[in-house]
Amino acid sequence: MRIDIVTVLPGLLESPFSHSILQRARNKGLAEIHVHNLRDYSGNKHKSVDDYPYGGGAGMVMSVIPFANCIDHLQKERSYDEIIFMSPDGELLEQPLANTLSLKKNLLILCGHYKGIDERIREHYVTREISIGNYVLSGGELPAAVLVDAVVRLLPGVLSDETSALSDSFQNGLVDAPSYTRPADFRGWKVPDILLSGNTPEIDKWRFEQSLERTRSRRPDMLK
Amino acid sequence: MRIDIVTVLPGLLESPFSHSILQRARNKGLAEIHVHNLRDYSGNKHKSVDDYPYGGGAGMVMSVIPFANCIDHLQKERSYDEIIFMSPDGELLEQPLANTLSLKKNLLILCGHYKGIDERIREHYVTREISIGNYVLSGGELPAAVLVDAVVRLLPGVLSDETSALSDSFQNGLVDAPSYTRPADFRGWKVPDILLSGNTPEIDKWRFEQSLERTRSRRPDMLK
Repeated sequence: MRIDIVTVLPGLLESPFSHSILQRARNKGLAEIHVHNLRDYSGNKHKSVDDYPYGGGAGMVMSVIPFANCIDHLQKERSYDEIIFMSPDGELLEQPLANTLSLKKNLLILCGHYKGIDERIREHYVTREISIGNYVLSGGELPAAVLVDAVVRLLPGVLSDETSALSDSFQNGLVDAPSYTRPADFRGWKVPDILLSGNTPEIDKWRFEQSLERTRSRRPDMLK
Repeated sequence: MRIDIVTVLPGLLESPFSHSILQRARNKGLAEIHVHNLRDYSGNKHKSVDDYPYGGGAGMVMSVIPFANCIDHLQKERSYDEIIFMSPDGELLEQPLANTLSLKKNLLILCGHYKGIDERIREHYVTREISIGNYVLSGGELPAAVLVDAVVRLLPGVLSDETSALSDSFQNGLVDAPSYTRPADFRGWKVPDILLSGNTPEIDKWRFEQSLERTRSRRPDMLK
């Protein structure tokens, strides 16, 4: 899988993409991630990429020309399965969407900033708008990193334990049962006896009940 | 405001916290962000912070001792308004929760990894579990960065334009109207005439109608 990301803050994405799962996926050749600086495509000598909004109002709007230049350039080199704009009013990212995107070959992700981007980019280029949640952030970079992490960790071979991604929260529609590790007693806080019993069928049953109970109390929306 | 973050991957958070809004907030002395390496509190010579789960199963669980050591150490220095664990089964982050947290003085954020953390940390230390969305990520670091961004940008003086945070999507319960900037005509793709009219009351009316219409079509859940 290849992912291209267009941003005015390429430096912001450096450390998330050079650690953990994403670094491992890149080292193994399972995912290529390329970050492009929008300013390199500004088309003007000041490398300006934003301007005042037509009709007035607070904040700046990202201009149509730099994005158009950059996307045209990238599309000459390959075709993209999706051109994604990270936007607070996009489709909410949920696990099934991450699963779907993990099957694609080439993704292009655009990061907005300020009060958004010129509508014409959304209208003429973007194929999918995605929001990572109902809250406002200072730019699309962290959402892009979140999306890339959610997708790339699903690629076969990325996680060291193949069963791990499948046993995650959400993949079975329930939140996880509580986990414990050593020591069995810490300051008098004890691990439940059942987990020390070695009785696997009973442990599985307990975990399922705990998952169900926790989903009911913490995330009843997931049971609907 | 002071935010402490506990993680096994302090390097992952370097670039998000040294760019954009977060860097500005730190430079202006409006937010202090301290990242702590959990391994420094492991309490063992191998600096190990995880172990196999009691009861078996895939994946590793983060141990109780390193977190307890680290939190005890930090709590000796100051008291925290909230000790937050970033978890996929936590309370969903939405804008009102970000607003609430932006009024606090000291926040402590714990980042999980692998298949989660020993339940005793959640039971005895954590005051709030927060999820940034219904999807699984490889660790709590990106969610922590998202939470910090959502909160810090609300602190008075962080955004250059004081009105900007208030006019964001979600703060008024509607998604934004489309934005446009120069040029007015790009490849025949034109800016709507109304925005070029200079008639502010009519522009405000158009924007409100667009916001309402878009909220209805894209995010009907927000109108309930």
